[in-house]
Formats: sequence, structure tokens, C-alpha cells
Amino acid sequence: MTTLTQLDDDECWELLRGNHTGRVAFVSGDRPVILPVNYVLDGESIVFRTAPGQKLAEIPMRHVAFEIDGTTADGAWSVLAQGQAREMTNAVGEASEALRAIPIPIQAPGDKDHWIAIKVSHITGRRVHREATDEVGGT
Amino acid sequence: MTTLTQLDDDECWELLRGNHTGRVAFVSGDRPVILPVNYVLDGESIVFRTAPGQKLAEIPMRHVAFEIDGTTADGAWSVLAQGQAREMTNAVGEASEALRAIPIPIQAPGDKDHWIAIKVSHITGRRVHREATDEVGGT
Repeated sequence: MTTLTQLDDDECWELLRGNHTGRVAFVSGDRPVILPVNYVLDGESIVFRTAPGQKLAEIPMRHVAFEIDGTTADGAWSVLAQGQAREMTNAVGEASEALRAIPIPIQAPGDKDHWIAIKVSHITGRRVHREATDEVGGT
Repeated sequence: MTTLTQLDDDECWELLRGNHTGRVAFVSGDRPVILPVNYVLDGESIVFRTAPGQKLAEIPMRHVAFEIDGTTADGAWSVLAQGQAREMTNAVGEASEALRAIPIPIQAPGDKDHWIAIKVSHITGRRVHREATDEVGGT
């Protein structure tokens, strides 16, 4: 027996807070692109750093999607956050400075000296729970 | 020291063949959405099953993005595949029947009796390799 549960907003935010690797999707031309990023949550914004390149050129000021997912001993979960992206590299004000002081774990090399924040306006999540007696997979 | 390597096509295909959980991104209205799916590779197509719902309503006949990623002891990798999606549920012919006979591991419950295939037309991947002496993360 497998059950699907919608996560409430609090659970979604908690998962976003507790993870640091996700994927951002944006539209390039008419076509969607998905790229992995390391991020931290700052209030209701997903913050990541990037070097000049496709992410920096195409993400800011667009509506983007951000996803995290994971598996547990008895199932899997995923969270989808959507919102407006903004480059914060040169944004002024205390909040922007505080944002740029957040340490973000970076995996890829290069000078990731541009900051992007996605202000989350919509969030959903779900969890798939597998009973112990259930078979994994099948046809 | 951290290095970033672009994967060649063969490496990307091998990673797609060796994994069974990925994420599909498509444009809903003007806005991108990312949803996790279980999949198998069939030739140069990424095949997954779905129940009636957002994925089924919005993915077929669109250009979509598909992403897988993972971590290793000394780094991380990701593959991005892009291509046209097509619903194969009622497609006729031997190849379509063979496709629908492929066992696909399914995590979420429900009757996933619709088949979607993404015919990959563009594939890229990268690997981040961390030397043993390197610190993880940092500011």
C-alpha cells in the first residue's frame, strides 16, 4: 500500500530550510531549462550565488520554479516553490547586505559573485509513503 | 581545489540509463513547473508513466527539460536533457507497444496508465570534482 500526502506550507518551508541543494527551472527562449544550485533560505526567499553565465543572464526578474526532493526509508518527498527571481548583487539596504553575508555552500568552482533571490509566492509539496509490506517498483 | 568538467554525450546517456528518478520541467501558463518522476530510458527517449493531472495535461507535445543529479564521495554531477514530449498511451506500432511493456518503478500511488516519452534532442552534463584537501562549503 502506498499513500500520497500533500504537505502543508509549514512542512514545505521546513524542508526548504533543512536542505541546501535544489534545482531552478526557468524559460530560455520558449524552452525550459533545469539547473542544480546550492542555496539557503532567507525568510521567504531562496538565495543562491552564481557566476556570470546562463543562470545569471536568464533568471533575474523572471518567474522561476525551484524544486527539492529526497527519499526516506519508507518513501519520498518533494517541494516545489515558485516565485519571482531578482539579482541582489548590488541591491542596497540592510536586508540586502545581510542577505549577501549569508554563507552558502558552493560546490562548483569559479567566482560566484552574483547573488540571486527567489521570492517565493507559491509553495506545494507531497510525500509518498510506502507501507513496509509493499513492493518497490513493479510494472 | 575544485574542478568543473563538462560531461560528453556518452557519459550523459550512461547516467540517464543508470538512474530512475529525475525531474521534468515544463511551462504552465508563462511559468515553469518542476515535478519529480520515475523514468526509464528507452533508446534516446525518457519514458515515464503518469495519472491524469497536471503532468498529463500540460507536458505532451511540448518541449520540456529533464534533469537528474547526484553526489559522489568527492563531488557532484548533473545531466540536463531537453526534447519534445509525446503521449504514447495509444500510439500504435511495435515500438510503442514495446515501450509500454517496459517496467517503470513507480513511487506515487494511483493508476498511472498514461505513458509519456521525451525524445531527447539536446543533452549536457557536468561534474564537480573536489580534491581531498578541499573544504566543503565555506562562504
